[in-house]
This record gives sequence, structure tokens and C-alpha cells, in this order.
Amino acid sequence: MKLIRFGQAGKEQPGIQLEDGKRIDVTAFGEDYNEDFFGNGGVDRLLAWLRANKANCPEISTEVRLGPPLVRPSKLICVGLNYAKHAEESGMDIPKEPVLFFKATSAIVGPNDDLIIPKDSKKTDWEVELAFVIGKKASYVAKEDAMDHVAGYVLHNDYSEREFQIERSGQWVKGKSCDTFAPLGPFIATKDEIANANNLHLWLKLNGQMMQDSSTSDFVFDIPTLVSYISGFMTLLPGDVISTGTPFGVGMGLKPQRYLRPGDEVELGIEGLGVSKQTAKAYQKV
Amino acid sequence: MKLIRFGQAGKEQPGIQLEDGKRIDVTAFGEDYNEDFFGNGGVDRLLAWLRANKANCPEISTEVRLGPPLVRPSKLICVGLNYAKHAEESGMDIPKEPVLFFKATSAIVGPNDDLIIPKDSKKTDWEVELAFVIGKKASYVAKEDAMDHVAGYVLHNDYSEREFQIERSGQWVKGKSCDTFAPLGPFIATKDEIANANNLHLWLKLNGQMMQDSSTSDFVFDIPTLVSYISGFMTLLPGDVISTGTPFGVGMGLKPQRYLRPGDEVELGIEGLGVSKQTAKAYQKV
Repeated sequence: MKLIRFGQAGKEQPGIQLEDGKRIDVTAFGEDYNEDFFGNGGVDRLLAWLRANKANCPEISTEVRLGPPLVRPSKLICVGLNYAKHAEESGMDIPKEPVLFFKATSAIVGPNDDLIIPKDSKKTDWEVELAFVIGKKASYVAKEDAMDHVAGYVLHNDYSEREFQIERSGQWVKGKSCDTFAPLGPFIATKDEIANANNLHLWLKLNGQMMQDSSTSDFVFDIPTLVSYISGFMTLLPGDVISTGTPFGVGMGLKPQRYLRPGDEVELGIEGLGVSKQTAKAYQKV
Repeated sequence: MKLIRFGQAGKEQPGIQLEDGKRIDVTAFGEDYNEDFFGNGGVDRLLAWLRANKANCPEISTEVRLGPPLVRPSKLICVGLNYAKHAEESGMDIPKEPVLFFKATSAIVGPNDDLIIPKDSKKTDWEVELAFVIGKKASYVAKEDAMDHVAGYVLHNDYSEREFQIERSGQWVKGKSCDTFAPLGPFIATKDEIANANNLHLWLKLNGQMMQDSSTSDFVFDIPTLVSYISGFMTLLPGDVISTGTPFGVGMGLKPQRYLRPGDEVELGIEGLGVSKQTAKAYQKV
């Protein structure tokens, strides 16, 4: 099943994308895709509800904006340097254990919303990433049980301001948390849809030119390892999003470096998880 | 006004602590202390409601557990090394601009809940901190307008596992986010209660012995500076909590270093913001 949310920013309603690409409104199910939904068997309950009610769900026009496919989670956790070749282009060693950082959840936007280049930013960069959504509270979970705690997968562009991240004292969070820096979607594919999340093609194009083109089979740490590892440092709650790192091919790694400018178009996709597209805009005071 | 929340963990109800220390239940007001409350003038509306309804509010027994005095916020942002003498004991330079990191909001607990020492932790440490709560959305806020965005102040113990934080690859978040690592409270004092938040005595005792004893007048960066600075990297939402860093006197800085063991009692306080007390317990699988 493919979970979507649609409508005006901040007022999204839940929907489903069907096999034929048609999108239907499931507001009548009475729940949004939030911590309670994921934590209380929402995916299975929605499936059962759809069997009886699908025919009566209104179709959503293709004109309607897609929002992020879940309600703001408690955490958006990212794994750094999880592809060997990207660690190399960043001038960093392959980590012995996963590197973790947080993005502010206020950075989350819909898959095709504009990327706002922050005020005074000179180094806004892209990062296509496979993210997954927690379906069941996880604390000190063994690797062999880890997949029981995953609800599904989602495409994520982990936008990063490299000067804010690396040159502005201390931790990476400053360069990862700007508004619009976390487009999620188009949809969450529930776990059953993806046979092997550790072997998916992922790619990103800048103005039509392929910049990142890799496979999650190049992960340094696979998803069960990450769930188990992270759950040893903090409790993962249903709906929490974990992003698994980006492969080779970011702007910082190019010679010369290439950062985003107003008007740039960034398109990205992962096998089975659809495609998203953001247009870069300059910050303007609202 | 002093906002409290009381009752069983996860099922807290809102209350008020009166001038005479008596605590009253304001569930009948119909709102909890969350993003909507802070963002929609909840403090003023509650004040007005109390004028008419205070006499009918049930008193809360002193036996009842206090929870964190606000609903889980979107962010719990911490400032590192914001007192010169603490930077020195940590072996780090005084930062040129604020160092920021996030704690997982799942670490938030009530002011007197047990501290759970994580599994395999050897270096769990204390940090008394003044935290403040955002009352109004903040993005690119000028320093002179910053205080308009602050709703109130709260006592925070920024528990930190130093091995997880510093020796386990990469960012600090691993050592800051464990469950129970962010006791908040006893109450949020609304802004009007604190004449100058940049000049408050704060202290922490371990088993009755004074370990930290300082003043927020030693801040490297004061609160208006922090609000303005952080709001240039991310949008602060109503209810977000920002913790302003800890003064000299943590366990890591002692010779020999002293970390928490089961049975240790940690008591802390800030002038005008009350006192909290946590007892350290070993992690036990539930």
C-alpha cells in the first residue's frame, strides 16, 4: 500500500495511491498518518477498511499538492557517511559505527514543494536518501527482530547547507535543519511492497543531469543494523523517520564544487518509491 | 504564572502552581500545554479563565507525580559550551558562535522521575541548565525582537553519556538522547515571573554535595542572542524548548572523573524555577 497526504500545507488529508497510479481520499477512515496510526496497527486497519470502502473514496485530482506522507514525527534521524564512496568525497573516513544526527522536523515538506535556499546560504547541497518509518516502539532491539519495527519506506532529499553544517562551530544540525530541507515522499510504501530495501537503485538529477546514481546495496550499515544500533541510544517511536545516508555525487564532492542556485531543478527517485522534484528558490521574507 | 502537568506518565493533565505553593487542576480549561496553546495566546487565555474559575479548580495532592510541564515539543535544542569555565573543563575552546545540538524529545520526563542509566553506560553525567520555551513562531528574528518569542522558563537537567557523546563516532546526539535524559520542571514560569533570565543563580548537588554553583550571568551568549541566532538556521515553533548550556562542575571535569551510579541522588535548582530531584537507577529490561 502507498500512503500519501494531500492538500494545502499544514492542512493535509490522508490518501492512498493505487496500483494504477490513481490517488484516492481516505479522510473517511478517520485517522491521519501519525504516531497513533503507526503504533496501533493503522496500516492493517486501513487495509481492512479499504476492502469495504475503497469504491466510495473520492479520487484526488492530479493537480492537488502532495504533502509529506506522514504527520510531523517525533524524530527525523539521519545516518551520516553510510556509503563508502560518499565518505571519501566528503574527505571523511568510513565510520566504525553509524554516525547519527538529527534534522529538525520543521524542515519536513511535501515531495514537490520548493526548496528555499536559506538567507546568506552559499553552499546548499542535495542528498538523495532512502528513509524508513518506524511502525512499533523500539528500545534495545536485536538485529534479528529489527524489521518488526519498520512500517515502510519513503524517498527523502536530505538538503544540507555545507557552510552551516561544517564551518559554523560544532555539530552538523545547523546545516541540516533549515525549512524545506526535508522533502519526503511522494508516498510511504508499506514494508510488504519492497522485497529488499538493502538493494534499491537510487538517483538524483540536477537540471536533468545525473549527479547521484547508486544502489542501497552499497550501504556500510544495513537497515536492521541501523534499527538495532539506534534503539540502543534512544527509544524510537512509531512514525519516527530514519534516513539511511546518501551515496556519492553531492555538490560538495565535485571539482569545482557546485551548490544550488535559484531556478535549479532537482529531481530524485528510488526504485519502488517514486520520484520527487524540487525547484530552488531564494529566501524571501514573508 | 507557573504551569505544571501532573498524573501518570503519558496521561498528564494541566495544572497551575499558585503563589502559596498549592497546585490546582485546570483540566476544565480544555487545553493541554502544547504547540497550539503556546502559539495561540494560551497563557493569556488561561490567565483570564482562571480569574473566573480558579475557585472551582480541584486541588492536586502533593503525592501526585509531576510530569514535564509541557506536551512533547517539536524540538529540544541545546546550546553547548555556553559558560566559559565549562568549556575549559571539557577541554574545548569558547565557541565563536553558539554550538547547537538536539536531544531526542523522547528523552523528556517529569522533574522527579528516575534517571535510568543506559545499558552499558559507564559515563552518565549531569548538567543543570536554564531552558526556555518558545511562545511564538520564530524565523530570522532580530535580537531586539527576540524576547517577544519567549513564553517562559524551565529547569532542565541535560543528562549526558560522555562515552556515547564523544567516543562513539561523530555527533553528540547519541549521548544526549537516552530515555529519561531530559527531566523538565517542576514548572514553566511564564516570562513575567523572571525579571532577568540572564542573571539567575543555578546549582546542582550530587548526594547532597554541591557540584555546580553558578549564575546565568556567566553566559557566553544570552537568551536574545540565542533566539535570534538559532532562528536563522531553522524555524522555532511554539512550545519548542531551548536549553542554554551548563556551567562548570560536571562529572567529566572532575579529577578523577565521577559518573553516576545506581542509587545516586541528583538535586538541582534555579532561582525562581524551583527544584527537581532524580534518583539514578540501572537499566532493566521491561
